[in-house]
Amino acid sequence: MSELLSDKTVSDFLAQLGSDAPTPGGGGASALAGANAAGLVTMVARLTISKEAFAIHAPRIQEIINAGDKARIVLEKAIDADAEAFEAVMSGYRLPRATPEEKAARAVRIQEGLKIATESPLNIARYSAEMAELAAELAEIGNPQAISDAGTAALLAEAAVQGALLQGCINLKSLKDGDYVAAARAEIEQLIERASNARSRALATTLQKLA
Amino acid sequence: MSELLSDKTVSDFLAQLGSDAPTPGGGGASALAGANAAGLVTMVARLTISKEAFAIHAPRIQEIINAGDKARIVLEKAIDADAEAFEAVMSGYRLPRATPEEKAARAVRIQEGLKIATESPLNIARYSAEMAELAAELAEIGNPQAISDAGTAALLAEAAVQGALLQGCINLKSLKDGDYVAAARAEIEQLIERASNARSRALATTLQKLA
Repeated sequence: MSELLSDKTVSDFLAQLGSDAPTPGGGGASALAGANAAGLVTMVARLTISKEAFAIHAPRIQEIINAGDKARIVLEKAIDADAEAFEAVMSGYRLPRATPEEKAARAVRIQEGLKIATESPLNIARYSAEMAELAAELAEIGNPQAISDAGTAALLAEAAVQGALLQGCINLKSLKDGDYVAAARAEIEQLIERASNARSRALATTLQKLA
Repeated sequence: MSELLSDKTVSDFLAQLGSDAPTPGGGGASALAGANAAGLVTMVARLTISKEAFAIHAPRIQEIINAGDKARIVLEKAIDADAEAFEAVMSGYRLPRATPEEKAARAVRIQEGLKIATESPLNIARYSAEMAELAAELAEIGNPQAISDAGTAALLAEAAVQGALLQGCINLKSLKDGDYVAAARAEIEQLIERASNARSRALATTLQKLA
């Protein structure tokens, strides 16, 4: 196992992203955007819970800190998990296909890899959608001095949801398990709707408080 | 000068973002999202220019690579520049104000700091808006195998534009130079419109090609 992407410096990560190396790609960039959103969520929450003025919201803010810290760690890990999921698909396609047995084994491995490479962005989108909603909530009840950070968290989280799901959609096209594909498509629609609503709500609240 | 934020590992950057430390905040997170978008733009462009099939677009794709590489470096530097801009404002507010002379000098320094802290997100938004537009163009003419990465680049770039501008808007409220404020507000409107249009265009093209 080579060095983790999350252990690279920000500068080196960006340089590798900008190269023609297959990973990190859009999935890893989406996971990083989601992790950034989670970081902003907990920053705003911490700048709220430390102030007497918002003591009434302290129990809920502590829940948000816990959820945000967890999501940040999950999404950071997802940067590398997404690269591994890509490799799972590629390793299937590289298998030999000279005999009918090899062809069948290869097809099975490709289908397994495609499911892993669909689950990975779905997982990024699930946690990022939650971050978009928590950001919208913080725009309402959080420290107004950090209102622009709450708004930015919602923007980045929504982009992470949609970006991750674009990656997932590619793999769905080649998946043959109809029930799985239908369930995944339904969840994708729901995640996009949740994230879009949260972004709109957070942005409206933020612009209103900034005005 | 302490260690650059861009020299931290991705993991350490995210942990500091999630803490209650004042920087990095929404500005730095937006700059990173913009740099991520720039990285995806050059990745898609490099995966296009290396293929014979797209040779007809090679001169334009090379321009996009040049613009994307430049933007990635500018936006990476902006992660730290944004933290310095925040410090410029804070150092003004920390100045003594016991005498009328001190008060006047402090007010001047705060106004100077606020302009720096408005220029920083504007600069992030300018380069990110360009990335959103190049991503939309790549969704049209780029290698369709990387179509989801082009779409993701547009999503992240648009979020970077709007996120950065939310930070800039905070400082505009306290700026007293009316001409500067009016010009900045006009540019903000224009940047948001460019980024929103590019995001819509890129997303429509991406979803159409993925269908």
